Amino acid sequence: MKFIKKNDIDFDEPIIIEAFPGTGLVGSIAAYQIIKELKLKYFGYFEIEGIPPITTIENGTPYPPVRAYANKNLVILFSDVIIPPNSINRLAELIVKTFSDNKPKLFVSLGGLIAGKSEKVFGIANKEKLLENLKNYVEIFNFGVLGGISGNLLIKCDDNGFDAIALLAETVGVRPDPRGGANLLEVLNKMFNLNVNVESLIKEAENIENKLKELAEQHLKMMSKKKEYPMYI
Amino acid sequence: MKFIKKNDIDFDEPIIIEAFPGTGLVGSIAAYQIIKELKLKYFGYFEIEGIPPITTIENGTPYPPVRAYANKNLVILFSDVIIPPNSINRLAELIVKTFSDNKPKLFVSLGGLIAGKSEKVFGIANKEKLLENLKNYVEIFNFGVLGGISGNLLIKCDDNGFDAIALLAETVGVRPDPRGGANLLEVLNKMFNLNVNVESLIKEAENIENKLKELAEQHLKMMSKKKEYPMYI
Amino acid sequence: MKFIKKNDIDFDEPIIIEAFPGTGLVGSIAAYQIIKELKLKYFGYFEIEGIPPITTIENGTPYPPVRAYANKNLVILFSDVIIPPNSINRLAELIVKTFSDNKPKLFVSLGGLIAGKSEKVFGIANKEKLLENLKNYVEIFNFGVLGGISGNLLIKCDDNGFDAIALLAETVGVRPDPRGGANLLEVLNKMFNLNVNVESLIKEAENIENKLKELAEQHLKMMSKKKEYPMYI
Amino acid sequence: MKFIKKNDIDFDEPIIIEAFPGTGLVGSIAAYQIIKELKLKYFGYFEIEGIPPITTIENGTPYPPVRAYANKNLVILFSDVIIPPNSINRLAELIVKTFSDNKPKLFVSLGGLIAGKSEKVFGIANKEKLLENLKNYVEIFNFGVLGGISGNLLIKCDDNGFDAIALLAETVGVRPDPRGGANLLEVLNKMFNLNVNVESLIKEAENIENKLKELAEQHLKMMSKKKEYPMYI
Amino acid sequence: MKFIKKNDIDFDEPIIIEAFPGTGLVGSIAAYQIIKELKLKYFGYFEIEGIPPITTIENGTPYPPVRAYANKNLVILFSDVIIPPNSINRLAELIVKTFSDNKPKLFVSLGGLIAGKSEKVFGIANKEKLLENLKNYVEIFNFGVLGGISGNLLIKCDDNGFDAIALLAETVGVRPDPRGGANLLEVLNKMFNLNVNVESLIKEAENIENKLKELAEQHLKMMSKKKEYPMYI
Repeated sequence: MKFIKKNDIDFDEPIIIEAFPGTGLVGSIAAYQIIKELKLKYFGYFEIEGIPPITTIENGTPYPPVRAYANKNLVILFSDVIIPPNSINRLAELIVKTFSDNKPKLFVSLGGLIAGKSEKVFGIANKEKLLENLKNYVEIFNFGVLGGISGNLLIKCDDNGFDAIALLAETVGVRPDPRGGANLLEVLNKMFNLNVNVESLIKEAENIENKLKELAEQHLKMMSKKKEYPMYI
Repeated sequence: MKFIKKNDIDFDEPIIIEAFPGTGLVGSIAAYQIIKELKLKYFGYFEIEGIPPITTIENGTPYPPVRAYANKNLVILFSDVIIPPNSINRLAELIVKTFSDNKPKLFVSLGGLIAGKSEKVFGIANKEKLLENLKNYVEIFNFGVLGGISGNLLIKCDDNGFDAIALLAETVGVRPDPRGGANLLEVLNKMFNLNVNVESLIKEAENIENKLKELAEQHLKMMSKKKEYPMYI
Repeated sequence: MKFIKKNDIDFDEPIIIEAFPGTGLVGSIAAYQIIKELKLKYFGYFEIEGIPPITTIENGTPYPPVRAYANKNLVILFSDVIIPPNSINRLAELIVKTFSDNKPKLFVSLGGLIAGKSEKVFGIANKEKLLENLKNYVEIFNFGVLGGISGNLLIKCDDNGFDAIALLAETVGVRPDPRGGANLLEVLNKMFNLNVNVESLIKEAENIENKLKELAEQHLKMMSKKKEYPMYI
Repeated sequence: MKFIKKNDIDFDEPIIIEAFPGTGLVGSIAAYQIIKELKLKYFGYFEIEGIPPITTIENGTPYPPVRAYANKNLVILFSDVIIPPNSINRLAELIVKTFSDNKPKLFVSLGGLIAGKSEKVFGIANKEKLLENLKNYVEIFNFGVLGGISGNLLIKCDDNGFDAIALLAETVGVRPDPRGGANLLEVLNKMFNLNVNVESLIKEAENIENKLKELAEQHLKMMSKKKEYPMYI
Repeated sequence: MKFIKKNDIDFDEPIIIEAFPGTGLVGSIAAYQIIKELKLKYFGYFEIEGIPPITTIENGTPYPPVRAYANKNLVILFSDVIIPPNSINRLAELIVKTFSDNKPKLFVSLGGLIAGKSEKVFGIANKEKLLENLKNYVEIFNFGVLGGISGNLLIKCDDNGFDAIALLAETVGVRPDPRGGANLLEVLNKMFNLNVNVESLIKEAENIENKLKELAEQHLKMMSKKKEYPMYI
């Protein structure tokens, strides 16, 4: 497992936002809007053993499934595939290691919580002082169990002396939820003055939902074939 | 597999109590009460390949699933997940190695024995002289077969010259059994003058039982999904 | 995984065409015609762990399943077996490494896209400038997801500073499609002045289709037996 | 995989008897009687990856599942668990290596042959001269196929220049067969002047049968759970 | 994986015949007759991870399942177990390496082709010049796909500069076919002046068939148990 850098970016204490696919795809939806609106540059990709051999084509050019977009203040980690559970711990370590020389100001992990509705956003943090500040924006997620990379990433950040928070949006269910993504985006806007258009996201919600549903179904199909010998394109 | 230390503690010949999940969760219940009542400090965690990528949130802060709490005289090893059988031998070795420089006075492994009732506590020891003393507190478990980490830990302690006992509480069945946990706690109180409140444990039995049942069910659900690609939060 | 060279060829900035089996076998069909018509020489083979232990016999001589044919200007990578998904990333890297000292002019990956018809050929490229030129021959495949080695190979080429394109022919379905293969061949003829007979391919379409169907069925049968102990010849 | 020595024994050209569980448990039954009657000392244990994490308790003290008992003339290798097939070759090598510095006089492997009755004992040997002597005690097993460690151990002994025989008792079926064990013990008594009480074994046959049946069932249950996350004691 | 030599033989440019089990067991049958009639000496064995732990007993002495017999002019590679597909490539390499210092004159691989009848023998070769000579004895197998070790071994021989041919006898089906074995033996007799009795083989056909059927069934049974914990002898 390694990170392959594709472009040089002159970072200035960037915020690193991890938005890999999870419940309701809320992180992916918010991240996709940020990448598009802030015109973030393709920065590089993570090579991970065991993920399905798929490639995303954009404007006729192929991109690996797990990749980073960035400008000097912001990095977004985005993935077209679900991260396999047994890769999560090592990927969290690799993320921290990849950006540890860029004086990262804060790591932010985006996720969803199934709640039957898409209203609140909850927060957790790997340091007491961060929790105090977090309360100005979201409700604290006090007690519970988290699956996926969010928790791991915060712990690995703490082990290496970096500040990290996770923002967890309520979502209706496992289906893609643009409303939950919009809620995440509103918190990120306030927190980091991103000025990313949320209105258009809500308007586009239905379109995005369809496109992402399609993607999710393709991935699901690919993953269910993982141990056979599928026919390739 | 490794232990990551998160806080410095100035140990004074501590007793190391292993209380990983087992039959009736009796060890976990007793350990949870000790950690809470004696206000033990979070000391560090074990990183174990192959356990499900879950994180426990307490007061808005994430904790890894397999961790240690301690004060200068006492270490409690606690886990939110069942230790995978194929990791047990190496984890037992790592536990002994982790604390071997802290002049540990005694290793204690907590476990349960399905008995259809929750009355007695049985003991085993890795040295003859320990058995003599153990008889003052519990009945000796003379002949039988033990699964899990208890036996392994005692053997690894012996291989490295450390004293170790296991305390095995009778439990009604595999379901969480606060009464069996209380019985373990009473023996530990007498043995090591812990002065941990057992009354409140018995009163809280029902509450704890519900919370732990819920945890156990979540873990069971997660583990059954281990080889698929689950949707994360 | 390694490449074993079997003959010396004095390369002159060759074009490397990857034509491993995929949807409609369009790449394999076009490649087979090129190898035959241009009388390319057997150049060597890739040894890949985990592929079924089969051997192709031609004129009484055995050949490994994944091999390269070449003349000084052209290399064709051909396979009798489907490349296992978990080998694709490393094989793409090995292909780039194998030819990186031969001043390769361009890497070309051939593939198919299920379209219910066999009319157009689409293209993608790993560099902007290549896309411009590609538009003179084919339509650009703007947005989508690709499985298999095509995307990976283009990305690995880019990582190592080499130009690479993929040509993706529409095909009726997963069944061998000589018409789609002929369409690929026509584009390759125009692009690289190969002067390979397409007419005869279209005429032989039916024959080839039968022979390749048979091959495909044998492979399918072998692969489905992969984890048993089959009886060998 | 390694051997951990727990006690020092001043060996005098010992006979090493391997009695791991097999058909009818005949070797285990004979070995158990020898260990008990000759009051052999616990000598050490084999640590083997992949065997179930169980521990045997005797007189309140835990013992690992695969262990050695010995006096200065005799070593008995005993196991509470069936040796996994894929560990057999390496374990046979480790056994030879463990005792190769103790000038072992002879390695003896005990096993059973399903025969529908418990009458004869058959023998094989890894050297011609041993066969001659063996004929004074048992019938030679001339032609056939053996599963398990018996054959492997004899071959590894031969590779390292050590004499080795196997004694194979007829047994009724796969169920524990104390009568077959008694037949093995009678041969061992004659061969090595052990003077171990066979009468009491035959008398205790029924008791032992029940205890060992119980053990066998526990192991079977544990092994069938090997790839799940069982609840531990 | 390694070869363990058990006897010294003063080779004189030997012919190495690989006769591992395959379709119709024709190679094994021919090889068994050669070993017996020419009184070849046990030369050594191949240790292969992952094959079932079985041992063949002959005249009271145990032999490993994959072994070599030889005189100064001839080596026969024989196996009581089917070679696992994922070991074939490495075993072919090990065979070539094992005999590469003995100035081998020719490697010969024996196999079968299901044909519904047992009449012809076909040949392939890894060099053009060998094909010319082969035509004097058998028909050339011009086009097709071979499974198993035959093809691999010829390719590995060619990679290392050694001459190699395969002889493939027609066989009725997958069942042991002594007639196909006799046909192979007749070709080998003519080719290498072996003077091995074929008549007796044809006469013994039925006996051998029964014994080998039995062996084949035992192996099949063992292999189907490979991932469980079988009871051993």
